[in-house]
Amino acid sequence: MKIRAAVLEAFDAPLEVQEVDLAGPKAGEALVRLVACGVCHTDLYTASGADPSGYVPTVLGHEGAGVVERVGEGVTSVEPGDHVVTLFSPQCRDCEHCLDPRTNLCLAIREQQNRGYLTDGTTRLSREGEPIRHYMGTSTFAEYTVMPEIALAKITPDAPLDRACLFACGLSTGLGAAMNTAQVASGSTCVVFGAGMVGLGAVAGCRLQGADRIVCVDLSPERLDLARGQGATDTWAAGPDTVQQILDLTRGFGADYTFEATGSVEVMRQAVESARMGWGLATVCGVAGKGETMDIVPRFLITGRRIAGSSFGGVKGRDQVPQFVDRYLAGDVDVDAFVSHKLTLDDVNRGFELMEAQDGIRSVIDFA
Amino acid sequence: MKIRAAVLEAFDAPLEVQEVDLAGPKAGEALVRLVACGVCHTDLYTASGADPSGYVPTVLGHEGAGVVERVGEGVTSVEPGDHVVTLFSPQCRDCEHCLDPRTNLCLAIREQQNRGYLTDGTTRLSREGEPIRHYMGTSTFAEYTVMPEIALAKITPDAPLDRACLFACGLSTGLGAAMNTAQVASGSTCVVFGAGMVGLGAVAGCRLQGADRIVCVDLSPERLDLARGQGATDTWAAGPDTVQQILDLTRGFGADYTFEATGSVEVMRQAVESARMGWGLATVCGVAGKGETMDIVPRFLITGRRIAGSSFGGVKGRDQVPQFVDRYLAGDVDVDAFVSHKLTLDDVNRGFELMEAQDGIRSVIDFA
Repeated sequence: MKIRAAVLEAFDAPLEVQEVDLAGPKAGEALVRLVACGVCHTDLYTASGADPSGYVPTVLGHEGAGVVERVGEGVTSVEPGDHVVTLFSPQCRDCEHCLDPRTNLCLAIREQQNRGYLTDGTTRLSREGEPIRHYMGTSTFAEYTVMPEIALAKITPDAPLDRACLFACGLSTGLGAAMNTAQVASGSTCVVFGAGMVGLGAVAGCRLQGADRIVCVDLSPERLDLARGQGATDTWAAGPDTVQQILDLTRGFGADYTFEATGSVEVMRQAVESARMGWGLATVCGVAGKGETMDIVPRFLITGRRIAGSSFGGVKGRDQVPQFVDRYLAGDVDVDAFVSHKLTLDDVNRGFELMEAQDGIRSVIDFA
Repeated sequence: MKIRAAVLEAFDAPLEVQEVDLAGPKAGEALVRLVACGVCHTDLYTASGADPSGYVPTVLGHEGAGVVERVGEGVTSVEPGDHVVTLFSPQCRDCEHCLDPRTNLCLAIREQQNRGYLTDGTTRLSREGEPIRHYMGTSTFAEYTVMPEIALAKITPDAPLDRACLFACGLSTGLGAAMNTAQVASGSTCVVFGAGMVGLGAVAGCRLQGADRIVCVDLSPERLDLARGQGATDTWAAGPDTVQQILDLTRGFGADYTFEATGSVEVMRQAVESARMGWGLATVCGVAGKGETMDIVPRFLITGRRIAGSSFGGVKGRDQVPQFVDRYLAGDVDVDAFVSHKLTLDDVNRGFELMEAQDGIRSVIDFA
């Protein structure tokens, strides 16, 4: 079939929205009609050429939600008409990692996905017979996509898809960092560095875990307003004294849990140094620049701090994304507040511009 | 009373064994006659002047074991005749940290101890009326010492004190790193970097926890022999390919638990990079040089590795040191293998020379 899609033709150049060919789903795959898709920093990271594992041409987009239109042979977990969230982090439920509660890093299709191919090592996307690679196994800046069923989280049809799509990446990453990776204990003191989509999700996750005090630190007053809406009890302008401020707040000890959601290695260091002596856990969520390293003074570890990280918030997507969506519908997370702009697919580059201008939290492409 | 003690008069100079004055125990304190004391890297670290918090004059030594001779007012947990191990890391059983299972960093006398004073801000050690400071709250390179009862672990009189003293620092630090900090799970794969006292203790701790495979990495073939004696299943000469060797051994995944016991920040980085994707934990035990930092590539965290550290292996000393000593007597840890040299107090500087020459694991001063 012919579909319209936003193609990355060359790094550091605007995406080109054009007609491409999409083949039908093979065994284990499903054809999904996209209804909504968030524009995420990771899309921009690859488009800019900064991502060392990037490739072109490819159809970008990974924060998608839509409706299953058709399924390939042997597909049992979704059927036409199902509402789904796309998962760049699949869950086969069968590999060594899916069977282990400690990690969400499914091994089933990892290698092919990283190279831009579906499970069988080929693409369903093409143009004049030349393959176009699938980005993050998702390629959701498109009217339709074909994905393995293990990368589709079936959600309740009651959820608006232009909200549900945020659970495909940023929001789940933040919620999961607090709920899965750190497993924030009730009554604790938390600090979240960065109030973008991931940081705001972490604030909400800390609140859902019953944290007593949630400090959010960012440069933008608008974002700090949003953090208060998600449950931050204290919001501070980021600065060179942030670590000292946290120590002052906590009788010199530091916070039980800190979260870094900025991608800055300097902030990662602050997250470690402001975690509590004795048991503080610093959770790293952001993706650092190529070649950058965190500098950690070992003394902070010897005195009982720990450092963790996670991809997609440690969320096992097919299991947990539907649960997150249900909590959203139950009123536990105010997702509306995150959707700052609605765009058409033709406006996708505008989504990148808004992101670079730090205008709002999320632009969502509406395919309706 | 007059006692003989090894005094650090100036940094980077030999200790001077001389007669000094020791006042009797005040309230909450006990007079201990030392029977044995290990010579540890931390003593040398301070003697060399590298320790930024060091001071002179002071009586060094902290890996002591002896017999209580007299107790001050209100002392209830030890009495004359009790065999004790000295604790640079006390356990008051009353502060916020002692009451919390997550940390062993007792807060009761921390500040005074760091400055070289006993609980009331004075010293019992002096010379011609001038105070001499207590090193690490212990000052066990001496015939006698006065210490707070909260820093004395009462052990069974059945244990030879020239073995029990090793539980005062290095051995407990290694055992505790595996048993408390990492809480190694049965059946797992562990890698220990460094086969000094702490690393060998970590090897033994991994074995006691039921690890399936224990790799120990060091430069010295003699130390690797000792590691095999403590339960290492594989011993490797350290080299630039160590991380790759560990990945090769573990189907490319890395080890479930890694332990750094060298003090080298480069090795700390190796410990992180060879920990398992998804859930690997790197535990930092070594004390790095002043101003040195670990360089961590954040990607290793995002893909599920964690980093921890501990002081004194997370051991709550009054509770756990007696248990460790009992396990030694039950045959669970071969402590004899660690005692490579016996010295008199007058030979204390020889202990530093042997350490710098990496000759043996521990020199133990015998006061008998």
